[in-house]
Amino acid sequence: MIKRLKCIVSYDGSRFQGYQRQINQRTVQGEIEKALKIINKEPITIHSSGRTDSRVHAYGQVFHFDSKLDIKMENWKKAINSILPKDIYIKKVDIVDQDFHARFSAKKKEYRYYISLNEYNPIRSQYVCFINRKIELNLIEKALNLFEGTHDFTSFSSGQHVEKNKVRTIYEAKLNVKDKELEFIFIGNGFLRYQVRIMMGTLIEIGLGKKEINIIEYLFNNYDRAKARYTAEAQGLYLYNVEY
Amino acid sequence: MIKRLKCIVSYDGSRFQGYQRQINQRTVQGEIEKALKIINKEPITIHSSGRTDSRVHAYGQVFHFDSKLDIKMENWKKAINSILPKDIYIKKVDIVDQDFHARFSAKKKEYRYYISLNEYNPIRSQYVCFINRKIELNLIEKALNLFEGTHDFTSFSSGQHVEKNKVRTIYEAKLNVKDKELEFIFIGNGFLRYQVRIMMGTLIEIGLGKKEINIIEYLFNNYDRAKARYTAEAQGLYLYNVEY
Repeated sequence: MIKRLKCIVSYDGSRFQGYQRQINQRTVQGEIEKALKIINKEPITIHSSGRTDSRVHAYGQVFHFDSKLDIKMENWKKAINSILPKDIYIKKVDIVDQDFHARFSAKKKEYRYYISLNEYNPIRSQYVCFINRKIELNLIEKALNLFEGTHDFTSFSSGQHVEKNKVRTIYEAKLNVKDKELEFIFIGNGFLRYQVRIMMGTLIEIGLGKKEINIIEYLFNNYDRAKARYTAEAQGLYLYNVEY
Repeated sequence: MIKRLKCIVSYDGSRFQGYQRQINQRTVQGEIEKALKIINKEPITIHSSGRTDSRVHAYGQVFHFDSKLDIKMENWKKAINSILPKDIYIKKVDIVDQDFHARFSAKKKEYRYYISLNEYNPIRSQYVCFINRKIELNLIEKALNLFEGTHDFTSFSSGQHVEKNKVRTIYEAKLNVKDKELEFIFIGNGFLRYQVRIMMGTLIEIGLGKKEINIIEYLFNNYDRAKARYTAEAQGLYLYNVEY
């Protein structure tokens, strides 16, 4: 009998050419499907909650796949992890209903973005965005609040996005500050391609005094990607959690 | 006039073939000398406090070099960092006396080793050693204390070490534990090749119940590298500080 399996996966994005399977490229999807093919002895396609861009990390990406194999649930996790490379790790495997879909059943997604205002540290260079200029945290926090709610995020998305509906709801946009380390939390019903990085880029420019805070309201009402041009670096971004 | 410059450097060891310059290999020394050659417009040889092994990190490695250039002290750091790759960073540059030598003038060295007892996290896999078995911290702490003092560390060094005198003094050997994360601190007058990793390997085996605690005393008195065979993984080790 075919079972549908839901997996929670974490990965270090720094050594992949992004998430999505591509011929002759090392990708997250490619490595996972390679491992599943070895276990299942037939090609397996996985379906994720959405792709992450090159160099973006994940603590709680979710994907599903179907398998005919009769492996005990507690052994699935061990079996897959024993084959996966060191920079991908399956945290949890569960049987789900046949109508579960990692992408279409997702209710909420959480992204986090990390900035350090401390002196540059090469050991963290792939995992956080360093900013060594004076930045106004008060302004950033005020601007951050404006992202909460339901808005048209066209100006905060890549031009390539094919979906027509670019209205999304952000339930929570929060900043935690500790020892000059900034943790931004974004929880929403879904995010457009590059959306978090363009929001972050805009927030950084506001903090640096390069943009006024009212740019955000303007960009919600005017489809003007040119005004939100700065996309924050990929390595500070983590897909943190997907809720179903 | 030739000046001698002392530099404190940090680096992420994960993408280098070790510290020492080698033809056709990406090494820390090689990258720094490449940058200094560009600035000085002539080949420069740097002298470090000692090499670090492949995949070992540094927060506070020290090297010196001589230069005829007349650059203001505050600009040296910027100049070198502007050329270095992202995984090496010069933290400090100072003029020192002509008789300063990064290796021979060193008084104390501090190494740190990081172990996580939490669930494996691929994002940290290059920066900490994960252990997912039951480990007795009390035993490890007792054993750790035995390393303090002046001992013959022959059994805790690689066979390749050419120096005859393998007596070293460890001033401090300490363990900090927080949320299942272990930080080992070793401060000594010098360390043999692989010494910290072999001491750590022995401590881990004691913690796992594979070796008795009295193995340490035995290894001080008997040159028996075979009994201290396990060398802990490189990626948990950091050259933290060198004192002059």
